[in-house]
Order: sequence, then C-alpha cells, then structure tokens
Amino acid sequence: MCEHCVTLSPRGDKQAVEEGALFMPKFDGAGLITAIAVDANDGQILMVAHMNQQALEKSLASGEAWYWSRSRNELWRKGDTSGQIQTVHEILVDCDQDCLILKVTVAGDGGCCHTGRRSCFYRRVDRKTDGPVTLSFTEGPRSR
Amino acid sequence: MCEHCVTLSPRGDKQAVEEGALFMPKFDGAGLITAIAVDANDGQILMVAHMNQQALEKSLASGEAWYWSRSRNELWRKGDTSGQIQTVHEILVDCDQDCLILKVTVAGDGGCCHTGRRSCFYRRVDRKTDGPVTLSFTEGPRSR
Repeated sequence: MCEHCVTLSPRGDKQAVEEGALFMPKFDGAGLITAIAVDANDGQILMVAHMNQQALEKSLASGEAWYWSRSRNELWRKGDTSGQIQTVHEILVDCDQDCLILKVTVAGDGGCCHTGRRSCFYRRVDRKTDGPVTLSFTEGPRSR
Repeated sequence: MCEHCVTLSPRGDKQAVEEGALFMPKFDGAGLITAIAVDANDGQILMVAHMNQQALEKSLASGEAWYWSRSRNELWRKGDTSGQIQTVHEILVDCDQDCLILKVTVAGDGGCCHTGRRSCFYRRVDRKTDGPVTLSFTEGPRSR
C-alpha cells in the first residue's frame, strides 16, 4: 500500500458524514485536521497535533504517525529526530469527521512531548477563589 | 467563586508557558482553544469541542463544562437541552497551553454525542489496499 493508493472521499451530506461508512475527513480553513495521539496500551492522551491531507495519507499508508508542524511549517514524521516514532494501531474519527484519535505505541524512550515528558499534559489547572489561576505539575521534568 | 473572579494570565515567554505554574491559555485566531472531554471514570474520550475565553471562565468558575458552538455561534452549557450536563473534575493543559483535557462525569443518559451515542468517536478508520478508505462502527446508533 503506497501513499498514492489512499483515497479519501469528498465530503458528503450530514447523513453520509455522520452515519456513513466512508472516510470523509474535514480539513479546516488552514487545511488541517486535529489528531489526538493516545497510548494504545493504557489510553493516556499523549499529545494533540495536526495533519494536513498529505500527513494523513502518509500515516494511513505507512502505519506511522506523520503530522503537519504549524510552527515549522513542514511535514513531519514524529520521531524523526527524537527516535520517538509512533506506530499507529488504530484510528478513530468523530461524528462530523473533523477530529481523529490515533492509538499509538511509541519507540525510543517512549516519550511524546518535546519537553522530555511522556505526555504533553503534565499540568493540572487549579481551582481557587482569587488571584491568577495556577497549575500543578503531575509529571516532573525529564532529562532533555 | 464567580466567573468574574477567574483570572487567566497573559501569555509569557516559552519558558513561562511550558514550565511555569501560571495558567496562560492560548486562544487561536478565532479566539478558541480546543477542549477534549474525557470520562473521569474510565478515561474514554467522549468529544472534542472548543471554548472561547468566556466559556473557559464559566467552566472554571462553575465546575460545569461550557463551550463555544462554532456551528451555532453561541456560548453553550453542554447538556442545557439534552440534560447531559458535564461536571468537571479536573482540567489538564498541554505544554504550549493551547489544548485542554476535561475529566468529566456526564448527567442525564450519560451520552455526549448529538447522534445519541456515548462518545463522538464511534467509527474506526479501516486500512485497506485499494478503493476509498472506509469506516467500521464501534458503537451502534442509539435512540435519538
């Protein structure tokens, strides 16, 4: 299966999008769709990133996660420099087909976040009654 | 604690955003931040929605999930019409503070998706070698 064999269907009507069995991903005004990478073993949410059509096609074709980097403005195979390659075991799509969940296993040191942590979601928002809203760390820094 | 007591800090530099203990949410060009609602009990991803600043402040202040509806262009307390009110038990923020996870419990029939299903992610993307990419249902339709 090569990238060029992947055929994404054009958007249909609401019924086709929500109840149909064709993949009709919706890319936003910038040509991107949101992708949530989740650990395939324990379900932890690891990171949220974006794919353009080419990244999505490459991910489907290769079974490894490709994203579009909004900061670097480039196609990006996750782990190319860090070794944290993501093998994609399953992709889920939501009702209006504008968001994806990727169930992945991570190579290298198993991390996902550029800060060196396993997950990008390492801080909890505190609820308090006055002053600025603060954060509590749920995972400390890692060596990076 | 009232909505007006919630103080979101202005964006700081990269170090402050990624390693700091102040909540500095980043709203995109449309004034929105992505929010992933997750079942607080079993960790299942239920839905992905968006919040503007007011929705976020109301969620923090009330402990119930408020969103901004992009289709209806209005502030929206989830569950107002369906009874599927989301009680927010925890909020996590990611490294660059442009995405949130809400750990919620859901009132009413426990559903989240407007199609009547528990989660919006009820279809799996099939990998196949030719023809259009198809979807398989992981949860059937519910009465709605």
